[in-house]
Amino acid sequence: MNAPADFSDTTALMAAMGVEARATAAALAGKSADARTRALKLMAEAIRAAAPDILNANQTDMAAATGLSPAMRDRLMLDAGRVEGIANAVADIAAIPDPMGAVIADWRQPNGLHFQRVRVPIGVIGVVYESRPNVTADAGALCLRSGNAAILRGGSESLNSSRALHAAMVSALKAAGFPQTAIQLVPTTDRAAVGAMLTGLSGAIDLMIPRGGKSLVARVQAEARVPVLSHLEGLNTTYVHAAADPAKARAIVLNAKLRRTGVCGSTETVLIDSSITHTLGRDIVADLLAAGCAIRGDEAARALDPRVTAATEEDWRTEYLDAIVSLKAVSGPDDAIAHIARHGTQHTDAIVTESAAVAEYFLRAVDSAIVLWNASTQFADGGEFGFGAEIGIATGKLHARGPVGAAELTTYKTLVRGTGQIRP
Amino acid sequence: MNAPADFSDTTALMAAMGVEARATAAALAGKSADARTRALKLMAEAIRAAAPDILNANQTDMAAATGLSPAMRDRLMLDAGRVEGIANAVADIAAIPDPMGAVIADWRQPNGLHFQRVRVPIGVIGVVYESRPNVTADAGALCLRSGNAAILRGGSESLNSSRALHAAMVSALKAAGFPQTAIQLVPTTDRAAVGAMLTGLSGAIDLMIPRGGKSLVARVQAEARVPVLSHLEGLNTTYVHAAADPAKARAIVLNAKLRRTGVCGSTETVLIDSSITHTLGRDIVADLLAAGCAIRGDEAARALDPRVTAATEEDWRTEYLDAIVSLKAVSGPDDAIAHIARHGTQHTDAIVTESAAVAEYFLRAVDSAIVLWNASTQFADGGEFGFGAEIGIATGKLHARGPVGAAELTTYKTLVRGTGQIRP
Repeated sequence: MNAPADFSDTTALMAAMGVEARATAAALAGKSADARTRALKLMAEAIRAAAPDILNANQTDMAAATGLSPAMRDRLMLDAGRVEGIANAVADIAAIPDPMGAVIADWRQPNGLHFQRVRVPIGVIGVVYESRPNVTADAGALCLRSGNAAILRGGSESLNSSRALHAAMVSALKAAGFPQTAIQLVPTTDRAAVGAMLTGLSGAIDLMIPRGGKSLVARVQAEARVPVLSHLEGLNTTYVHAAADPAKARAIVLNAKLRRTGVCGSTETVLIDSSITHTLGRDIVADLLAAGCAIRGDEAARALDPRVTAATEEDWRTEYLDAIVSLKAVSGPDDAIAHIARHGTQHTDAIVTESAAVAEYFLRAVDSAIVLWNASTQFADGGEFGFGAEIGIATGKLHARGPVGAAELTTYKTLVRGTGQIRP
Repeated sequence: MNAPADFSDTTALMAAMGVEARATAAALAGKSADARTRALKLMAEAIRAAAPDILNANQTDMAAATGLSPAMRDRLMLDAGRVEGIANAVADIAAIPDPMGAVIADWRQPNGLHFQRVRVPIGVIGVVYESRPNVTADAGALCLRSGNAAILRGGSESLNSSRALHAAMVSALKAAGFPQTAIQLVPTTDRAAVGAMLTGLSGAIDLMIPRGGKSLVARVQAEARVPVLSHLEGLNTTYVHAAADPAKARAIVLNAKLRRTGVCGSTETVLIDSSITHTLGRDIVADLLAAGCAIRGDEAARALDPRVTAATEEDWRTEYLDAIVSLKAVSGPDDAIAHIARHGTQHTDAIVTESAAVAEYFLRAVDSAIVLWNASTQFADGGEFGFGAEIGIATGKLHARGPVGAAELTTYKTLVRGTGQIRP
């Protein structure tokens, strides 16, 4: 549909997809916000309508995926509810505000020139992901909402599922009068396709987004010749200050660590002021243990309960993504801030305190993408930020930092309106 | 002063500079806007006071630079007026608004969480440049204004001049109570130092900015393992629409092409609606020829004056940076837009017309960093935008597009203030 018939030559295939994407990006720039919304609504309907085909394709993938771990099989597996969830996510993306054309700055110079910075699409976005087929729909829809052409490369084990989803999406693009190449899916499992995308396909790809585990992100960062927005580790800390409200602190720590342990916004380290380890600290340790969380602690933490095991140096830099927490006493805010600066990954960190002055000091001093006061680190999520949908949480500092929604998938241009001005 | 004594091991030297820069970046984050302003004012004074040393060092560089072209010798050469200009540029940077801490977005969610995006420094910025010694002061000062630590690597032929400038800057940092390592200058001419910077010095460098010719930018883009903001070609077009005001069009084309031919904002191609080539087009050709500009044109342009030579395909994609222009007739706005999309470099393009509808169509359709209506492309400059100073004009689409001033050298973090919220 969007690739030459001879899939055996991956280099030629990818080059052709790049040329298509670049041409399509120019065509997409002329579409209106309403047209994009309509295409996204049709896409949600098309996915619902194609559920039998998608489930069929998924059974083929599942049958072939005998070597995968139960966790990976679960990520790959679709059922009627999950397909409905995928369609709903696309419908949600249809409902979020269209970022295009928004004026993000507006000023005049003394010579009368009128300057406006307006949002425009980036152009062509390449997304490389692993076994979850839903990313095909999420990433494609978010790129469309932001006016970009997309080249998607999913995991080889989910290729049949992704192709069925993609076919439904393409039928909606066609029905909405959009180029069918607005969202292209790499039709080969040859890993050379990823390498080709990382070179930028001769300037066709403006931005690469890896969505997956550390090894995928590491490969993308090592090989990419184009800008990358990556989502790295969230070694997040919740710091309980001496002036914390005990009830808030207990609720926040439990939620931050245990609501879902496998998400990037989960807390991995709890720091507690040494003046309150024997009071509030003892309650927090008891709460965590009662909820089934293992605790690796320093001397002060171990003194509170014999079930707390000794933390090693390694524990302070481990993202458990599990019901395990590292916990230690600190002498105060500066000690907590220094611990976070040394061991954290600048993703999401929180303080619990009733002291506004201490909280503001912490918010200013901690250089992480998201810094919270009296709230759970599990709020690190584009949906919770009000973005409607996200393609990940960027942990780099350039272009976007934190949740990446439709607005973060745009760039800007500066329009300058004059009345004949020439430069002296 | 900021490097180990043994300069023979470039790898060790650069690694040590990276460690210093990273530590310094954390210390700089605690400084106030007023402190930065004071340090910049002291820096301007220190450069003025050190003028004799700087001129002395420059004479050593000039004496050694016998193999350079006259143009390169001119770039390298300093005199009292140029040193004063360098000091004034630093004083100008002291006077621009400090970007740090500015709230760039502020919103609340229904659960009561209060979100703020605030500007923060990027961290450590590496700048690689060529023979102009003034970049040492410009880039260092702009990094300081934006709260970043800088590692500067100038051209080997200007090393003595840059060291003398840098010594003055460091004395000012010291006097202002700033770490002397806030602005480090690579003290070796070993090209391996650039390679080391491009790897990011084990995570110490957050952003690389090349300032120089195509070969330098190409090397940086090919080798960089860290984000790069680069300044590429400006193959800019001025399009004279049928509804252009003749006087404005003639003044704008002359200024856009000839005010300064060597700057990235100069116009390289003029497109004229075919319905007016024999009227306004003839005047524009006469103006350009009278001003000493060579014209390479299509059939329509050659019919206007025998001095117009035939343009080759190559001319439409050549950035002359000289008193040469390519000129052709187009059938209307869509033809002009297509020519720009095909041959332009998405830097700066302009339309001259009295039709607001056509102008707005052009502004929307042309995907360049800067798009102007009834104004000269030579306004493509951070100073003209009101930024006070610029470190270049970014031609990529990620992070910053167009002039890069102090605000563009920042990133943001999101502060989330709650009252005990946990995520359901």
